[in-house]
Formats: sequence, structure tokens, C-alpha cells
Amino acid sequence: MEKKKKILLLNGPNLNLLGTRQPEIYGKLTLVQIEKQVRALAKDLGVEIDFRQSNSEGELVTWIQQAARTFGAIVINPAAYTHTSLAMRDAISAVGVPTIEIHISNIHKREQFRHHSFIAEVAVGQIAGFGVESYLLGLRAAVNCC
Amino acid sequence: MEKKKKILLLNGPNLNLLGTRQPEIYGKLTLVQIEKQVRALAKDLGVEIDFRQSNSEGELVTWIQQAARTFGAIVINPAAYTHTSLAMRDAISAVGVPTIEIHISNIHKREQFRHHSFIAEVAVGQIAGFGVESYLLGLRAAVNCC
Amino acid sequence: MEKKKKILLLNGPNLNLLGTRQPEIYGKLTLVQIEKQVRALAKDLGVEIDFRQSNSEGELVTWIQQAARTFGAIVINPAAYTHTSLAMRDAISAVGVPTIEIHISNIHKREQFRHHSFIAEVAVGQIAGFGVESYLLGLRAAVNCC
Amino acid sequence: MEKKKKILLLNGPNLNLLGTRQPEIYGKLTLVQIEKQVRALAKDLGVEIDFRQSNSEGELVTWIQQAARTFGAIVINPAAYTHTSLAMRDAISAVGVPTIEIHISNIHKREQFRHHSFIAEVAVGQIAGFGVESYLLGLRAAVNCC
Amino acid sequence: MEKKKKILLLNGPNLNLLGTRQPEIYGKLTLVQIEKQVRALAKDLGVEIDFRQSNSEGELVTWIQQAARTFGAIVINPAAYTHTSLAMRDAISAVGVPTIEIHISNIHKREQFRHHSFIAEVAVGQIAGFGVESYLLGLRAAVNCC
Amino acid sequence: MEKKKKILLLNGPNLNLLGTRQPEIYGKLTLVQIEKQVRALAKDLGVEIDFRQSNSEGELVTWIQQAARTFGAIVINPAAYTHTSLAMRDAISAVGVPTIEIHISNIHKREQFRHHSFIAEVAVGQIAGFGVESYLLGLRAAVNCC
Amino acid sequence: MEKKKKILLLNGPNLNLLGTRQPEIYGKLTLVQIEKQVRALAKDLGVEIDFRQSNSEGELVTWIQQAARTFGAIVINPAAYTHTSLAMRDAISAVGVPTIEIHISNIHKREQFRHHSFIAEVAVGQIAGFGVESYLLGLRAAVNCC
Amino acid sequence: MEKKKKILLLNGPNLNLLGTRQPEIYGKLTLVQIEKQVRALAKDLGVEIDFRQSNSEGELVTWIQQAARTFGAIVINPAAYTHTSLAMRDAISAVGVPTIEIHISNIHKREQFRHHSFIAEVAVGQIAGFGVESYLLGLRAAVNCC
Amino acid sequence: MEKKKKILLLNGPNLNLLGTRQPEIYGKLTLVQIEKQVRALAKDLGVEIDFRQSNSEGELVTWIQQAARTFGAIVINPAAYTHTSLAMRDAISAVGVPTIEIHISNIHKREQFRHHSFIAEVAVGQIAGFGVESYLLGLRAAVNCC
Amino acid sequence: MEKKKKILLLNGPNLNLLGTRQPEIYGKLTLVQIEKQVRALAKDLGVEIDFRQSNSEGELVTWIQQAARTFGAIVINPAAYTHTSLAMRDAISAVGVPTIEIHISNIHKREQFRHHSFIAEVAVGQIAGFGVESYLLGLRAAVNCC
Amino acid sequence: MEKKKKILLLNGPNLNLLGTRQPEIYGKLTLVQIEKQVRALAKDLGVEIDFRQSNSEGELVTWIQQAARTFGAIVINPAAYTHTSLAMRDAISAVGVPTIEIHISNIHKREQFRHHSFIAEVAVGQIAGFGVESYLLGLRAAVNCC
Amino acid sequence: MEKKKKILLLNGPNLNLLGTRQPEIYGKLTLVQIEKQVRALAKDLGVEIDFRQSNSEGELVTWIQQAARTFGAIVINPAAYTHTSLAMRDAISAVGVPTIEIHISNIHKREQFRHHSFIAEVAVGQIAGFGVESYLLGLRAAVNCC
Repeated sequence: MEKKKKILLLNGPNLNLLGTRQPEIYGKLTLVQIEKQVRALAKDLGVEIDFRQSNSEGELVTWIQQAARTFGAIVINPAAYTHTSLAMRDAISAVGVPTIEIHISNIHKREQFRHHSFIAEVAVGQIAGFGVESYLLGLRAAVNCC
Repeated sequence: MEKKKKILLLNGPNLNLLGTRQPEIYGKLTLVQIEKQVRALAKDLGVEIDFRQSNSEGELVTWIQQAARTFGAIVINPAAYTHTSLAMRDAISAVGVPTIEIHISNIHKREQFRHHSFIAEVAVGQIAGFGVESYLLGLRAAVNCC
Repeated sequence: MEKKKKILLLNGPNLNLLGTRQPEIYGKLTLVQIEKQVRALAKDLGVEIDFRQSNSEGELVTWIQQAARTFGAIVINPAAYTHTSLAMRDAISAVGVPTIEIHISNIHKREQFRHHSFIAEVAVGQIAGFGVESYLLGLRAAVNCC
Repeated sequence: MEKKKKILLLNGPNLNLLGTRQPEIYGKLTLVQIEKQVRALAKDLGVEIDFRQSNSEGELVTWIQQAARTFGAIVINPAAYTHTSLAMRDAISAVGVPTIEIHISNIHKREQFRHHSFIAEVAVGQIAGFGVESYLLGLRAAVNCC
Repeated sequence: MEKKKKILLLNGPNLNLLGTRQPEIYGKLTLVQIEKQVRALAKDLGVEIDFRQSNSEGELVTWIQQAARTFGAIVINPAAYTHTSLAMRDAISAVGVPTIEIHISNIHKREQFRHHSFIAEVAVGQIAGFGVESYLLGLRAAVNCC
Repeated sequence: MEKKKKILLLNGPNLNLLGTRQPEIYGKLTLVQIEKQVRALAKDLGVEIDFRQSNSEGELVTWIQQAARTFGAIVINPAAYTHTSLAMRDAISAVGVPTIEIHISNIHKREQFRHHSFIAEVAVGQIAGFGVESYLLGLRAAVNCC
Repeated sequence: MEKKKKILLLNGPNLNLLGTRQPEIYGKLTLVQIEKQVRALAKDLGVEIDFRQSNSEGELVTWIQQAARTFGAIVINPAAYTHTSLAMRDAISAVGVPTIEIHISNIHKREQFRHHSFIAEVAVGQIAGFGVESYLLGLRAAVNCC
Repeated sequence: MEKKKKILLLNGPNLNLLGTRQPEIYGKLTLVQIEKQVRALAKDLGVEIDFRQSNSEGELVTWIQQAARTFGAIVINPAAYTHTSLAMRDAISAVGVPTIEIHISNIHKREQFRHHSFIAEVAVGQIAGFGVESYLLGLRAAVNCC
Repeated sequence: MEKKKKILLLNGPNLNLLGTRQPEIYGKLTLVQIEKQVRALAKDLGVEIDFRQSNSEGELVTWIQQAARTFGAIVINPAAYTHTSLAMRDAISAVGVPTIEIHISNIHKREQFRHHSFIAEVAVGQIAGFGVESYLLGLRAAVNCC
Repeated sequence: MEKKKKILLLNGPNLNLLGTRQPEIYGKLTLVQIEKQVRALAKDLGVEIDFRQSNSEGELVTWIQQAARTFGAIVINPAAYTHTSLAMRDAISAVGVPTIEIHISNIHKREQFRHHSFIAEVAVGQIAGFGVESYLLGLRAAVNCC
Repeated sequence: MEKKKKILLLNGPNLNLLGTRQPEIYGKLTLVQIEKQVRALAKDLGVEIDFRQSNSEGELVTWIQQAARTFGAIVINPAAYTHTSLAMRDAISAVGVPTIEIHISNIHKREQFRHHSFIAEVAVGQIAGFGVESYLLGLRAAVNCC
Repeated sequence: MEKKKKILLLNGPNLNLLGTRQPEIYGKLTLVQIEKQVRALAKDLGVEIDFRQSNSEGELVTWIQQAARTFGAIVINPAAYTHTSLAMRDAISAVGVPTIEIHISNIHKREQFRHHSFIAEVAVGQIAGFGVESYLLGLRAAVNCC
């Protein structure tokens, strides 16, 4: 039970640019602002949050690995690595921590190569297309379903 | 504003069997029980719900068409028609009512033919894999993002 | 000869929304207005018209079947079912009534999945891309080529 | 045991045209004549038969669902829906009634798009190519293997 | 307005053989006889016709280019080049003259490689399968839709 | 008529292992026991049976060739050669003896590479998925349909 | 009979470079030297030869068309147009003159895109890989099989 | 030089049925009659012939292997094994005896699966479509090009 | 050395329309203006230029062939033929003159069918996407790398 | 335990040519020399070896079947049948004897059609690319892992 | 204007090995020597250069991100990441700095998997195949077209 | 010779989790225990070992590059990067140090996307499926074959 209280929130490559980057696709909020909203909801739901971002596939793999002992769930926006990273997929299925996959945009209506997700195949579920709300819905899902 | 208050919740083929059908995939709750939970949350969020199920593609198309004037958003679990119904897709893009696509199971980790969704290409977003929670998350998304 | 005088004009799913639906693709005329133009031309050409629309694949199959005895030709705008309905295709090839396939938009320059037509494989010919004029050209083709 | 005595025999779209439709592919017997032969054999084998036909995918889905409590086996000739109906497939795997798939023609030597069957993936077995005999063999299989 | 009065009617490779060539597919009329029928209808509709045929892709490209200033519409039967000529496609989209694509046979029910048309992607619409009537329907379309 | 009395029953590679081999897929009966059941039914139906098995594609080809003069029908379980042997396919279409293809398991719900049958394209029909009953149904089909 | 005496020998693009061009693939003989050998054999076999080369697809189409009345057979080395020219294919099937397809190199062991021939689908047969001998074998085939 | 004098002529599966088998595809001559014609030409050309047929892939592999020391060339009609036998392909490339591939029918205009040849990729050249003449042309090619 | 001084600059179909044609893709300069800029740079670099345009594949093939003796390099903008002309590809690899492929637009971000270039496979290199600058860069590449 | 002492070493088609055949791919040792090395190592490891080669798929299937009772492991170099033999695959999975797949060359860097192995899908593991050492490594693997 | 003066020149994985690595593909110059030539030209053109190399996808993503404020253009040789890195692609389209893609070798004539570039889809243009000259041409393009 | 004495043993992403991670696929030994076994065998074989693991593709690329001068062979278990890393492939082919690819599980019988290896195309050979024994066999192969 105690474990479920801590949730690891991972952000993949280029998400540090949020707010400045293609706002017609990704919205106007910065990652810091999103983190603030996520923390507010976490407080309401009574869970702790660890919120990180990296452009490096290897670092993300290592962070996922470290979740094994400390976190009850992972909420991850894998960004571009969604479609190319078998290493992150293998990390998730190795650590056995329930993982929620989120996306700001609806990847299923964008370019063909964004439709397939290596992460989805080992995740509890996927939430895509609701802007910053995807983070909040993902947090709820992590609290209620993991 | 008034419009946003009414949300149409559509269920595709075989969802009337929920609870009795393959519980290891779809959970143990019946559609009636799910409706009850959805109505409870709707009350909390201050929105009205119209909750329907049909096995007929044509009827679902007609229901989507009727949403145009009365509903502020559609939350739809298109079930098997997700992957085969261009008619439902065309109906959604014709009526112009923002639509949230939900799935009980994570369709992206099931058979290959369940990975592609004709509905996703015209929906605001997609939520998949959280059991009955997918309905509740979908309702929240409809209230917050449409 | 007498037979050739009656022509069945079938409209597939969502065509009841014409005029209100995506006018940049489908034009501004409603289905009722189109029917009026078709009837005017039918009168000029000396043929009778039966003009119907349905969102239901099964109903369209049944209507095609009923054409066998009464109609000299079918003009059909199968809409979304163009690309998914083997049942309508089989009905057409079963009844043996010459069938003209029409489309308001040019399906060959839209999304990839609209390029293939199951109906075309059993139709006399196909007319696509001329707006309401597709109906009038289709009627002429039915009168002159069937 | 009692249950095994009742067998649901479902016929998909256009099979109501049998006998009049492309006899070089589907033979000269009408569906009524086939039903008569099936009933005769059923009597010999000591089982009850419920024999139905529909052009509507939704109606077929509903009929399959209703089999759950009353029938020991389903024998189905899904016709065109064999290749396009995920909804019927899901219904069969949901109700858990053993299902025998039959076809009048040998679908494996016809057009490429008739080779794949969504129904086969959830059926006990498939019988194709023996004309009306496919119905009789299917009935025997339902009696002996389900 | 004046411009709309002149219509360029182009015929691709092997159409000079019409009438003698595979009459079961292409009919018994020669290209000269078709031209006569087209000219008769053009007179009725009050438009001028320039009617040409070439076996050379390069010459057809050049003729399309020359249409830019003089013609209100192009009606083209690209024959075999339909499926292989990017150069003709680029010419049509460069000159910006509305273009109607016509085919004597229904290309969508012939060999797989005749289903795709490079021309369709830049044409107003496509008419296929009505024999010489395709020319007459194409002319009407050019007069009414361009 | 006399000819119809003799039926050649061929078994492909590894079927000599039946009963010992993967009983969850192929059942517990040995090939000898199956032969016994087949012979019993053959007697009932008044036909003679020649029952053979070989692991060699070449030998199976030769046996098919020899059927030309002596047998009224072939019932064949081609096993693994179903999916790889053009030579057996060519033999069947060369000798012109009506051939029934049978399979113990339902090949259409196993691995992708077992879905396609070279034999089906030249067979009267196919029966798959009924265990040893597939042999008995195949024999009935051979007697009634060839 | 008289007709059979004249054979049209067509050479596609770049064959005018033979002898100078990639001799490790195409050999050291020039097209003039090949023509000489062909003429010598033609004399032996008692047939007349018309030997031509063009880089233009349109001109080759026109030459094939002209064969209709005068030639008993065509022997053609279509070179690069083998794989891209539907127009030449249509010309051959339109004129109905039996056509032999020849290639200097064995196209089936070169790049993937050289394996498919549009010409083969309408030719009597194909000879590939024997250098200049392909021309001589092609001539014999034209004399003996057409 | 001495070596070139002996040519191995191999025939694949079902060619022993020639003359009786599908004469509209394979002609009316039996394999014995073809052998006679081949032997007559061989005598004219001053070469010895060893003429064999087998339905067994393994036996054909072994015969090809034995050619290494004794034969100057192989002429092979691999029949169905053309499209499936990597083993024969490997044998040919292992023994290093120049090999001519022949086919009675034009495999490139038959079913899709007959278009690809594993043998062609290791053969000097391919001759297809000339009936028994394919054997005679193949023999000439073996004498002149190997 | 002398040879390197002359560079053949070839332009494929529709490039004669430059400046008037889709300026948002191809820019506003006419081909004559581009030629002027190219000649100015050629003068600076001390090389002679022969600048040509044709809509005819055959003519372009012939021009490439003629380069063999006179030119040290070819700079070619093959336009639509980039993606369809094996004949031009074969011509380039036959003449052995180093060839630079240029494109005004970045073909790799346009339609899928513009991504593959038959010319690239035999060219020294490819420059795409820089408008008229592609010509100038191509000329520099021809001077420095061939 | 006793069982583990006997290991069946099978060699597929053309491996009897080793040493004489394409030494740049397969090395210079003959199969007899390889057998000698394998026997030497077997002695060191304290296991018995049965070493066989066949060009016949059927014979290899039969040998695999016979291993069921007598051998503790199979080491197989299936050569060309690796990529085409479902029958050998089915034999291996039927007998249930642990099987090691070996290859002299690294099949994954050769032609595309050598990349897929039907045997690998039922083998313990695969060793490829080490020449004769593949046999020795395979033997060690059979001793240590089966 | 000031901004345009600074150009970021990025080198992907393994380019630090240039000169020592496969000189037949990549030439004999080391990356340091290339940098020297690039700097010399930059001086001539009056621009500043920042020249970097990394084997890490994450680091390259970060460098691209940092270009947003400081650089007027990016010239990038993404090496192996060209074909696999969606993260770099997303970084480029996020920062909005015009980017030129360069390659030492002509990727379009190498292995199939090197033909597709994720970078090209967001780059101004692509230059490939000119050795070190690709860097110089890329720099000119960056100066003149961005 | 001296060089051959040092062997670099590289482990890709997530292999640091061995023993704790999915033991039914990867076994129960930790990477430290595997290293111990490898070191023991290395001692027996008289070679030095450098044993490393990283989750970072870039770091693995750099380590491979550094092998050029110091190591006689690389033994690599590339884990997830096997299927996605062109950069590691290019590094291996650049440094020219013979490389052995090993896998704990038999990748050829797992998910489709694990069947293809970019590393295999530049490796001496591949060993897959023997658990920790794959490391020991790989070491032997490195000692004996490089």
C-alpha cells in the first residue's frame, strides 16, 4: 500500500521544450507548469510524485530500472522514444512496475510512424490527445488502476 | 455552455455482455453497473448523461448524427466497430461534436487487427486499458477538454 | 424495355447529413435538394426514380436484393460502405441488376483507405468527384448504358 | 447433455437469395430447400434446429448472444461478414458456445479477400466448398465435436 | 467565360486502335466515330472541342502545358499512362486547368495495376466504365463542373 | 459409378506420430486407430478405402498421380506440405481426381504461415478443426460430393 | 503463311549503345553486329526481318501497332521499358501479333525491380540471359511457335 | 571440350504426366515424345544427352550434384520446385555446372506464385513459354552458351 | 582534363513551366533566369555549360547517351522521371559520365512516391530542396567531385 | 541421464559437397573431416554421436522422428531446408527431443530469404557463422543445455 | 541578420572515426581535416561555425535544442541516426532553426535501410554523396537558403 | 597474436537486471555471476576479458570504437539495441574488430520484431538461446574463430 503512494512521472525527449514548441500541437503550457498541475492533483489524491525529464534513452532506461523498489506506478510520456525504443520497453517489462503511457497529442491521428507504440505493448493502458489533461488523467489512472 | 452539460455515452457491439463475457479481459462489472458509476461521477461533475448500447452499426451512426444539436461531447466505446467502421468515423467528423474514444482493454497489446482505430483519426483523444476506469477517465476528459 | 424505365437510387450512411456536413468536401446542397434535381432530370429522360437513404448496411443489402424484379438499374452512392461492405457487393452481383457507382467527392484523391471500392468490382462503372453533378451523370449513365 | 440437443443454424447476408443467385458458385437449391435437408438430418441425429437468416450484422450479433443460454452449438454460414465482421467474432468468443463455420463455396480458391476469416479464429472448425453438403457436414460436426 | 467555351480532349496511347482492338473490353467504335459523337454533343452544349491522340508521353505533357492559356477544361483518357505517368500528373497540376479523367472500361475491376491512377490525384473527378458514353459524360462534367 | 467406390486416403508428414505427438493439438488417437474408424465408416457407406502415409513429398506426388485411373476421389491430410508443396498441388490439378482437403486442427487459428493452403486452391473443399472427425466428415464429403 | 515470313525485331532504349556499354553485363557485340547475325539466321530459316531500335516509348508503341497488318511475329528486347511500360504491353495485346520477349542478361538474377515484366504477361514466351544468342533463340521461337 | 559434349536434361515433378495433363497449358506431347525430339536435335548438334525425370526434390538434388564431373551443362525444367526449392538452387551453385532453366508454359503470365524462380538466380538463363520448343531452344542455348 | 570543362545540364518534364508553376513549391524564377544564374557561376568556375530541357523521356535518354564523348559531367534535374524512368537510369550507367542529381524541392518530404529515385542509384550524389540554389550547388559538385 | 549420452547429428542437402563447394562461403573441410573433429570432441565430452547426411526432406523427417526414443539431443545443420521445411519443423516439435540448430555461414548476413528459419522457432537455440566451429559449439551446447 | 552569421555543424555517431574508417565509402580525410576545410570556407563566406560530434542521440537532441536562440542554421550529418532517430527529428521541428542534412556517401545507393531519412522530413534540403564536399556544399546552402 | 589475447565483452541495456528480471526467459543468474563464469573460462582458454554493461547506446558505440587498438575480438550481447541500433552496427564495421553476437534467449522464436538483427549483418556469427552458456560459447568462438 505504502508503495502505491509514490508515483514516478517520466518525460521523454524534447518535452523540456513544451510551451515554446509547436503550440498548435502540444499546447502553451511549459513542463514546469504541467508539473505544478500534476503536483496539485497528486496532493489531492494523497500520493507523492517524482517528476523527471531526459533526452537520453539510456538515462530513461536507468530511471525505469530504479523504479522497481521505490515506486508503485510509473506514468510515462515517452515522446519520440514511444516508437523506437525497445530498450525502454524491455526495462518496463523487466521491473514489473505497472506503467501508464500518456501523450499530449493524439498520436493515432498524426503521421503513420507515430501510430505504433513499443511501450503500449507492456503498459497497463494508454491515454492520448488531451493536452496537459493527459497528465492528470494518467495520474488518476495510476492511483486507481495500479 | 449549456450544451457542454449533456454528454452522449455510446457503447458498441457486445458490450451488453460485459461482466459475463471474458472477465480476464473485460472485468467483472456489468454494463448496468458501469452506467451507475458513470452516472455517479457525472453528478459530481455537474453534467447530464445519455447512456446507450447497440449491436447495430447503422443505429450507432444514427445516434452519433443525432448528437449534433443536443450534446456537447460524445464518449464512445466503439468495441469491434473501432477497427471496421468507416461509417461511424464519417458520422463523427460530420456532426462535429468533440468525441472521446475509450476502451476497457488496452487494444494496443492485443491482436494486430485491434491496433488500428478508424475512430481515433477523428477523435479528440483515446483512453484504453483501464477497465471501467476508462469510462470515468473518458467522462472527465469530455468535461475538461471539449 | 419497360424495366429500364425504373431506376433505384440508393444513398449510404451519413448522406442524410448532406448540406450541413463538411461543405468544403461535399457541397452545400441537402439530400432533398439533390433528389429534386435528380427527379427533374429523370422526368426529362423519361424514367421513374425510387430515391432512398439508409445508415444500415443490412437495410441497403435488402433494398439491393429487392431491385431484382422491379428495377432496370441501380445508381448507388455507397458512401463509407464503399470501402468496407462485402455484403453489398455480393448483393449487387447476386441480383444481376446493372449498377452505377457514384461519389460526390473524388475518392481517389482523399485518404488511402478511400481509394479501394468493393462496389466498383461489380459495378458497370464509377463516377466520382463532381458534387451533385455526379448524381445527374450517374442517372444519364444508367439510362444510356444499362 | 440436454443443451447439446439444440443447435442454432445462422445464415448471413444474401443467403436468402440462394438458388436464384449465381448457381455456378452457390448451387441451385433455395435456402428453404436447404433448411428442409438440414431438418431431416437433424431428426436422424436426434437434435433440434433453429434456422435463421439475416442481412444485418447487428441482428446476427444479437442472435449469437442469445445462443448463450439455450443452444449447445452454433453452425454459421457468415457469408460476406466472414471477412469483415469483428463484431460477430467477438460475439462468438463472448458467448462461449462452440461454433462451426460453414461455406457453400470453397472460399480458399476464390478472390484473395475471401481467404481470411475473422470467424475461423474463434470457431471449432471450418467446412468449405461442398455446396448444401457443407450444411449437413456442419451439423454432424456440431453433434459429434461440441 | 469565353475560356470555358474551349475544351481540350486528349487521348493517350493505343486509343488510335479503338474499334479494332479487344472490342469485348473497349467496344466497337473507332476513335473517329467517338470524336464525331463528342463533337455532336459539344455543339449541343455550345462548346468548342480540340480532339487529339498521341502514343508519346512527352507529347501529351506538352499538349497539357499548352492548355494553360487557351482551354477552360481538359477531358483526358490517359489510357496506359494513367498508371505510370508522373510527368502528366505534374503537368496537370502545374497548368491549373480543371481536368476530367475518363476511361472506357471500368479500371477498378480489371488487373490490380490498373486500379491506381496518378491522374486522379490531380483531377476534378473520374468517370470509368461506360464505353463511349464515358466521353459524353466527361464532356458534360467539363461543361457543368469546371 | 464403379470408380466412385474406391477412395484414396493420403496422410502427409509426421501423421505417423499421431497419438504420441502434441495431443493438446492433435488428439490422442493413433493413425492406426483413425484408420480403423475410417474403415468402419467406409463400410457403412459402401466404399473401398486405400489408406497411406508418407513423410516424402515426392512419394505423395507419385501416389496422387497413381490415383488417376483407380480412384474416384482423394481425401488428403497434407499436414506440413499444405503450406509449402506446389508439387502436390500440381499433381492434384493434373490427375483431375476430385480431392477433399482435411486437417485435424483448425489451421486458420494457428500460426500465420498455416493459414494459406496451396492444396485448397485445387481441392473441392476443405474441412479443418474437428480432430479425427475431420477424417469421417472428409470421407462423407468424398462420397456425396465427388 | 505468307505473313509468317515477316518478323519485326524491336530494340528498346539504350540498346544502341551495345558493345560499348557495360560489356561485363551485355557483352562486346554492337547492335549492328547482332543485327548481322540475326539476318544470317533469318536467311537460313527463310524469313524476312525488320530490325529497329528506339529510345522513345511512344515510337515503340507506334511500331508495335504497325505490326498488325504486316508481320507474323514480333521479337522484342524491351530493355528498361520491360519493367515500366504499360503502354507497350497494351499495344502488344491490342495488335494481337504473337510476341517473343528477349533479354541479353538474365533479368531474374539482377536487381529486384528487373524481375517483373509487363511485357511477359502478354507475350508468348520469354528468353533471358544468353547474350546475343537470346536474339537467335528468339528468332527460332518466332519461326517455330507463332 | 570433351565435357561439353554431355548434357544432363532434368525434369521435375509431374512432368511424367505430360501429354495427359492439362493440354491447354502444357501441350499434347508426352515426355517420351519430347525426349525423342530432344535426342534428334542433340544428334544434329553433336552432343550426348542424359534425360531423366523425378518427383523427388532430394533425388533431383543428388542428380544435380552428380553432374559435376560428367556433364558440360544442365538443362532443367524444375516444374513446381522452381518456386520452392532452395536445395536445388544450392546444388546448382555448388556444382558450378552451367545450367539452363526451361519451362513449357510462360510462368510469368500465370499465378503470382509462379513468377519467382529460385533456380533463375543461379542459372545462365531462362526460357519459358514455347511448349516443347522450350526444350529444343534450351538445348541449343546449352550447346552455344555454356 | 579538357573534358571536365564541359558540363551538360539537363532538365526533365515540366521544368519549362518554372516560375509560372506552383511557386510555393518551385519558386518564382523561370528556367531562363535559372540558366542565367547557372551560366554566371559556370563562368566564375571556368567551365562550359550546355543547358537543355525536354518533356520526352526518349529525348532525355538520347541526350544522356550523347554526353559520353563530349562532357565531363552531367547535372540533371530529372523531375517526374526521377521516380519512373529506368531508361534514363540505364543510360546514365551505360555512358559512364559522372552524374549529379538535383531537385528544386526536397523530394524526401513530399508525397511517398517522390521519395524513391531511380537516378540516385547511379548518380554520384543528390542535392534536393534548395530552390534555384540546388542548380548552383550541383554545378559546384560537378566541378569539384567529378 | 543415459539418454543424454547419445546425440544425433543431422546434415541437410548439399552438405555432402562440403570442401569442394564454394569454399569462400563454406570453408575447405569435407564433411568427413568435420565428422572426425566432431567425434574427437564427443569423445572428450563423453557422449556418443550418430552423424548422418541426406538430400531428402522426407528422410530427414523420418530420422528426426526416430530420435524420440534413442537420443538425448539433436544437432542439426538443416542447410537449404532451414528456410522451406515446415515438415522438419513439425517433426522436431512432435518428437520433443531438444534440438540445436547450426549453420556454417552466418545466414543473417546473406540473401534475405536465408534470414528466416522455420527450425529456429522450435529449437533450443541457433549457432551460425563459425565454419566447422559451429559444429563443435553446437555439440557443446547439446551437452550442456539439453 | 546577425543570427544568420552563426551556424551549428553537428556530426552524428562514428564520424569521429572518419579517415580511418572504411575509406572506400567515407574517404581519407579525418573529421579534424574536414573541420579545417569547413572553417576556411566559413571565413570566406563571413560566418561563424560551431563544429561538434557525438555518439549519443540524447546529446545531439540537446545540442539541437540549444541552437534555438544562438544559431541561424544547423548543418547536420546525422550518420546512423538519420534512419532511426525520431527524437532528433522532433528536436529539429521543435526549435524551428532551418536545418541542412548532409551525408558523405550517397545513402540512396547503399543498403535499403539507409534510403529513408527521418531528418529529411523536417530539413530544408538534403545533400548526399560528395564526400567532404558535402560539408562545403551544405555550408553554402545554409548561408544562401536559410 | 598478442592482440587476440584481449577480448571485450559488452552487455547492452537491461542486462544489469539479469537474475531478477523475467527468469523464465533470461534465467536466474545475475550478470555478476555470469561474469564470474566467463572469467573462469577465459582463464582456462588463456585470454584476458574486459566485461562491461551500459544502458546507453552512445556509450556502447564509444566502447566499440575504443576496441580498435586494444582488443582482438568483441563478444557482444546487444539486447534491445540488436534490433534498433544502426549506430552500433556502423561502429562495429568501422573498427574492423571481429565481433561475436550472443543472446541469452532464442530471439528467433520470440516476437517478430526480435528476429531481425542489425548487428548480425556485420558480425562473424551469432549464438542465441543457450542462457548463460551463450556467453561461454561466444567466448570460445571468439578465441577459435577470430
